[in-house]
Amino acid sequence: MSVPAVIPFKPKNPKTRLSCVLEPEEREKFATMMLCDVVVAAREGGCDPFILATEPFSFGETPVQFDERGLNEALNDLLSRTSGPLLIIMADVPLTSPEAVRRLTTTLADMAIAPGRGGGTNAVYLSHADRFRVSYYGASFQKHMMIAEERKLSYEVIDSFLIHTDIDEKEDLVELLIHGKGLSSRYLKELGFTVSVNHGRVDAVRNRPSSS
Amino acid sequence: MSVPAVIPFKPKNPKTRLSCVLEPEEREKFATMMLCDVVVAAREGGCDPFILATEPFSFGETPVQFDERGLNEALNDLLSRTSGPLLIIMADVPLTSPEAVRRLTTTLADMAIAPGRGGGTNAVYLSHADRFRVSYYGASFQKHMMIAEERKLSYEVIDSFLIHTDIDEKEDLVELLIHGKGLSSRYLKELGFTVSVNHGRVDAVRNRPSSS
Repeated sequence: MSVPAVIPFKPKNPKTRLSCVLEPEEREKFATMMLCDVVVAAREGGCDPFILATEPFSFGETPVQFDERGLNEALNDLLSRTSGPLLIIMADVPLTSPEAVRRLTTTLADMAIAPGRGGGTNAVYLSHADRFRVSYYGASFQKHMMIAEERKLSYEVIDSFLIHTDIDEKEDLVELLIHGKGLSSRYLKELGFTVSVNHGRVDAVRNRPSSS
Repeated sequence: MSVPAVIPFKPKNPKTRLSCVLEPEEREKFATMMLCDVVVAAREGGCDPFILATEPFSFGETPVQFDERGLNEALNDLLSRTSGPLLIIMADVPLTSPEAVRRLTTTLADMAIAPGRGGGTNAVYLSHADRFRVSYYGASFQKHMMIAEERKLSYEVIDSFLIHTDIDEKEDLVELLIHGKGLSSRYLKELGFTVSVNHGRVDAVRNRPSSS
């Protein structure tokens, strides 16, 4: 039986911290490509992905639920109505591999959690979704640990840099260029991004075609 | 049989990019604490750790080899003299767990590699050390992949954020404060570092005792 996997997604004006290197339409396309990479990894990892979108949105054959409320409210409402297992995975972790997804969903604990950069939470697998509630934003990893302890849920921390690497800022793009195998890294390369090494520092730089 | 694990270490003036938050003596002590965490993880992960130091240095019962040459030269000389297995792991990955070490050393490939942030290489396990040579600095992950391909070595990429998280800059300290369980995170806390959440951003801040 496939585990349902919910991927929250904001279709309009996403990834504003990438505005310094991507035009608005490019950001929207890039966010959609990352979403696609996550959908593919979830499906190949044995899940049934669906999207929880803040606005009406369609995404090929992948089901979309529309909920205009904030992330925590929308997810906690979903959790309260879900008695079985559920994977929650963010849309901006395009390096996620099917193997990493399986490490989450095959945990023997009540919950498996994959931390994100800077204290965040990038994926949570719940064997009984309605026993948990989420609290994203800020240091959500620590908040989720506390909620699990309050609710006497056993948990496992999944040690995955592929899920840990959320793509928020220019500095994160180099990880995608180096380790990415999906649509979003291909799109970055099409846009002219390459890996540049300068005085030992490795950065993503964009070579825009000259207009001459 | 234990796998030998070499940990390169620079005892004098280490981690200069942490100068903004740590005094010189604190940096030396912090670097030594991180080294200790790596030694413990390697040992608990079934390895026999030893230190390759750029200067004469002693570290309790852990053997130390002194080699004043650069990192690549010293390691490649060691590799050329090592016909069996060897794990190379950096001294600044204090989150490393025994499980992550075992994922490296139990690979079925000729080589297992754990990438570091920004295109680096934080750990390499070699089943036959003398068949490989290292090339650190810059985008070493990609260089090591190319060397493995040139030498027809099969490889596995180890998906571990605990090894991926090298502690170089102030921004990295928050990861250690949140996920660390060893001596180095305890030392940071003793120095007054805490996790601070400001407008959704999670940072490590240092509260220095007031001198009044």
